[in-house]
Amino acid sequence: MLTAEQRTFANAQRVGRFATADQDGQPYVIPVCYACGPEAFYIPLDTKPKRVEPQRLKRVRNIQANPKVALVIDHYAENWSELAYLLIRGVAALLPPGDPEHQHAIALLRERYQQYQTMPIEAQPVIVIRPEAVVAWGKL
Amino acid sequence: MLTAEQRTFANAQRVGRFATADQDGQPYVIPVCYACGPEAFYIPLDTKPKRVEPQRLKRVRNIQANPKVALVIDHYAENWSELAYLLIRGVAALLPPGDPEHQHAIALLRERYQQYQTMPIEAQPVIVIRPEAVVAWGKL
Repeated sequence: MLTAEQRTFANAQRVGRFATADQDGQPYVIPVCYACGPEAFYIPLDTKPKRVEPQRLKRVRNIQANPKVALVIDHYAENWSELAYLLIRGVAALLPPGDPEHQHAIALLRERYQQYQTMPIEAQPVIVIRPEAVVAWGKL
Repeated sequence: MLTAEQRTFANAQRVGRFATADQDGQPYVIPVCYACGPEAFYIPLDTKPKRVEPQRLKRVRNIQANPKVALVIDHYAENWSELAYLLIRGVAALLPPGDPEHQHAIALLRERYQQYQTMPIEAQPVIVIRPEAVVAWGKL
């Protein structure tokens, strides 16, 4: 999926931006926390703080209407020779609680973000992105 | 378009993430530099460094196929009570060089990014986003 260099870069960043589109082709993009597994990226359904039910989140409704998604993980610096990004395009789905891959995703997320260790993210589905195309740009 | 607080937040960040989608609903998202005018956001067509002709950029081809876009401007911190984002959804177009709004956009971009003062961004179209919906989340 990713080269070793791309994986190191992805793991070194703390926030990505996740783009979905609804059935009318209207894009939607939000910052997300993520973990990077061997073959997939995982994004929990927390809303920091929660204001709506996770199943009602626009990102979830978009995935259900159109599973094509994109995730960008980038590094910004005022010295533009240091700019870099990884763009992952693929298909997203929701992993339900109890699914073994859901349990694996929760473990990866809690290892990466200590903030999740006390948040009940295991009770909600996890978004899984299965990459179909990866573009790396700049100085990873 | 934006409240004073939202405008201050937008101007305080240095990079946004710009989402487009092609005619098949496949999202695409990349980091972008932007300037915020009274009624629009402006994104220059530089590619830092240029590898393809600006008119061939995926972001440009997507806008031509589907002008619906989204731009997220956010702040990340490990203290998640400080997280914030502005999500702008709207319609994008290309301003050609010579258009008065293009000149205005170039001036705003060069004021905001000294890096652009020596880059010939005025020779390329500028992406303009005309917002139709703005969502503010978190501690702007």
